[in-house]
Amino acid sequence: MDRLCDMLESIEEKGWDTMEQSIRADAGYIIARALRAVQPDAAVERALRGRRFGGRVVLVAAGKAAWQMARAAHDCLGDRIDRGVVVTKYGHVLGPIANFQCFEAGHPVPDENSFRGTQAAIDLVEGLGEGDQVLFLLSGGGSALFEKPLVSGEELQDITGQLLASGADIVEMNTVRKRLSAVKGGRFARLCAPAGVLAVVLSDILGDPLDMIASGPACPDRSTCAQALAVAERYRLKLSGEAHRLLEQETPKALDNVEAEITGSVRELCGAAAAACRELGYRPVVLTDRLCCQAREAGSFLASIARSHGDTREPLAFLAGGETVVRLTGRGKGGRNQELALAAAEGIAGMEGTVVFSLGSDGTDGPTDAAGGIVDGTTAGRLAERGVSIYRVLEDNDAYHALAQADGLLMTGPTGTNVNDVAVVLLRGRSGDA
Amino acid sequence: MDRLCDMLESIEEKGWDTMEQSIRADAGYIIARALRAVQPDAAVERALRGRRFGGRVVLVAAGKAAWQMARAAHDCLGDRIDRGVVVTKYGHVLGPIANFQCFEAGHPVPDENSFRGTQAAIDLVEGLGEGDQVLFLLSGGGSALFEKPLVSGEELQDITGQLLASGADIVEMNTVRKRLSAVKGGRFARLCAPAGVLAVVLSDILGDPLDMIASGPACPDRSTCAQALAVAERYRLKLSGEAHRLLEQETPKALDNVEAEITGSVRELCGAAAAACRELGYRPVVLTDRLCCQAREAGSFLASIARSHGDTREPLAFLAGGETVVRLTGRGKGGRNQELALAAAEGIAGMEGTVVFSLGSDGTDGPTDAAGGIVDGTTAGRLAERGVSIYRVLEDNDAYHALAQADGLLMTGPTGTNVNDVAVVLLRGRSGDA
Repeated sequence: MDRLCDMLESIEEKGWDTMEQSIRADAGYIIARALRAVQPDAAVERALRGRRFGGRVVLVAAGKAAWQMARAAHDCLGDRIDRGVVVTKYGHVLGPIANFQCFEAGHPVPDENSFRGTQAAIDLVEGLGEGDQVLFLLSGGGSALFEKPLVSGEELQDITGQLLASGADIVEMNTVRKRLSAVKGGRFARLCAPAGVLAVVLSDILGDPLDMIASGPACPDRSTCAQALAVAERYRLKLSGEAHRLLEQETPKALDNVEAEITGSVRELCGAAAAACRELGYRPVVLTDRLCCQAREAGSFLASIARSHGDTREPLAFLAGGETVVRLTGRGKGGRNQELALAAAEGIAGMEGTVVFSLGSDGTDGPTDAAGGIVDGTTAGRLAERGVSIYRVLEDNDAYHALAQADGLLMTGPTGTNVNDVAVVLLRGRSGDA
Repeated sequence: MDRLCDMLESIEEKGWDTMEQSIRADAGYIIARALRAVQPDAAVERALRGRRFGGRVVLVAAGKAAWQMARAAHDCLGDRIDRGVVVTKYGHVLGPIANFQCFEAGHPVPDENSFRGTQAAIDLVEGLGEGDQVLFLLSGGGSALFEKPLVSGEELQDITGQLLASGADIVEMNTVRKRLSAVKGGRFARLCAPAGVLAVVLSDILGDPLDMIASGPACPDRSTCAQALAVAERYRLKLSGEAHRLLEQETPKALDNVEAEITGSVRELCGAAAAACRELGYRPVVLTDRLCCQAREAGSFLASIARSHGDTREPLAFLAGGETVVRLTGRGKGGRNQELALAAAEGIAGMEGTVVFSLGSDGTDGPTDAAGGIVDGTTAGRLAERGVSIYRVLEDNDAYHALAQADGLLMTGPTGTNVNDVAVVLLRGRSGDA
């Protein structure tokens, strides 16, 4: 976020000579507003605003954003929270929080610290009574960080390996693994009963499927033992007698002590970006918050929308949130957001008053230091002058180096959140001519 | 169109038991209305409605739809048209039209009949005076059908071959070829002067670039002699002395005797489809009439829009016109519209009240007898039950056979027009539950 602020300041300081620069400044503002809205602390504050709790309140936070979320809850509720357990990734505890026990643990592969932290959470909720409350803050990475296996760590790893090698899909994998865990598939919420659970979820999966995020510790499980056993048979899994017995034990199908609130998600990322567009005078159209197709084709699609609406009388913004995929055909440097933006550059070539940008909310697009890409109607021409063929760059998956030559990289630094991506088309239209 | 009527009747006769069938009937109505609006005769009638001509009126029609356009003009204006020349593809003259001379000629490679027909048109407009009017009806295929080369047919073919082999792009090719023609690049309009020219254009190129459609016989040419000579030098074209001299002769840069009206185009196809949606109670959103990206990715994009708006309170329709491309990875049977629809089927799987369809306005999608595809929230499930993997079908470019198993083929028969494709997402929303 610091680097985003630098970027914005540098745009402000330089001023802008062209309409394109002024729209790029709009883009910077929209990005800053959208990222702010999905910061773990802002998301938790929103979820807790106006809530009153009776009884004892304890806090359990798990996931990559667990520390920020716990910190924000502490800021909101202070001493109202009796005690807390936080389990996050190594290096992600940024200081002590009063009355909270913080664990750093393995991700993406769980380790002994994951199990210790999770056990501490189980101990914390044990003995809570009716009217008490567990504030359960969940974010991406929770699957590995919040885990207490019912088989040995070695066997869990072995079964996971067998499933991966067999070609089982993610639903099949989870159907088996939820039954090998003391906390997944709704079991943690069951452990909290009779206390109530308020699950505040920062979603990093499109469509916010609560049973998938961190394998749903506080969500009723839709899969059945019969399905789990069928997966074991289909892929001829080698299981210990104990593991086999566990597959026959049903997960909770209903939980009457849980309230879930999805708070930071790509939907809110899009919503905040749209609100910022509106503030700046653009009429926002949120096309989707479930985008999933090839990055460069999404860029072409968005460019064709831009081209059809380029003569709009009022400034327009089209937004698409989600997560595209990159088809690897080359060995260059880039990421899905950079590919999307660069592909769009070709489609909007020559258009005035038009900017397209796309960024990953975590500030890291692919294996690069950029959060995404930004292009306007002059980008393709500027690259052509340098002898750069966008088609060839995309075939080589080398969007980073091309965008770097055309003021096309968005640099935000790590943002401290991760709720997928958002792509935006900004159109000033005819009336917007500078 | 006859087969479309059959299809609509069969839907009506069968009635519908499910909301999906009722939305499919809506789709049939939208398709029929959209195709009707871009029929050459309807398009010409619209363009001529309310027009008054002074002086003598002659008609020149060139292109694949020339006969239908000429016939419609004759129906509108009758004896007001003094004489006419029609040049179309072999098999496309469907009967005599009083006072009109009809030629059938070579396409896509021009032949002697193209040259004879074009010469007849030149003879017709010769000697017209101020206040007289040439009604010039242009449709796709006009580049080959309306041609009078200034070099021999053999040399024209040889130069075209050299350009194709050199890797020259379409703009470079046209820059050279316009100068080797007596009618292209605005020259036919110049021959008509001092008479006025009303060009009624049925566009089959996205964005309706008048200088590209049939190489722009009635459109000022933006390319220059210097550019033509540069192309000849860049690709080391072997040219006769005569051909070289022709490249040095400038094409018209301004034409004050021409009025152009683009009448049947993908924009009107989308507009008519949107109007039909509105009649049926859907709020239409025309995303673009310039769509150009991979067919299956466009299907995924549209499905992600559907998924985000599935809970709409009012029925919604999203429309995208244009022309997608197919990435060939297999050897199956299909077309771009069928691929788009099938890819969308995966994205909208399980949704209620949702239909996606895509069709080519000419009624022929790829090398198949289908015009396109239509899917709903049940399509993916029905295919899965039959053991059909949509992913594998798309990798094999075999959408035709998969859609055939799930009531997914749109059959219209040849429609007599060609103005690209339109894809439509229909959402009844929650309030639309049957």
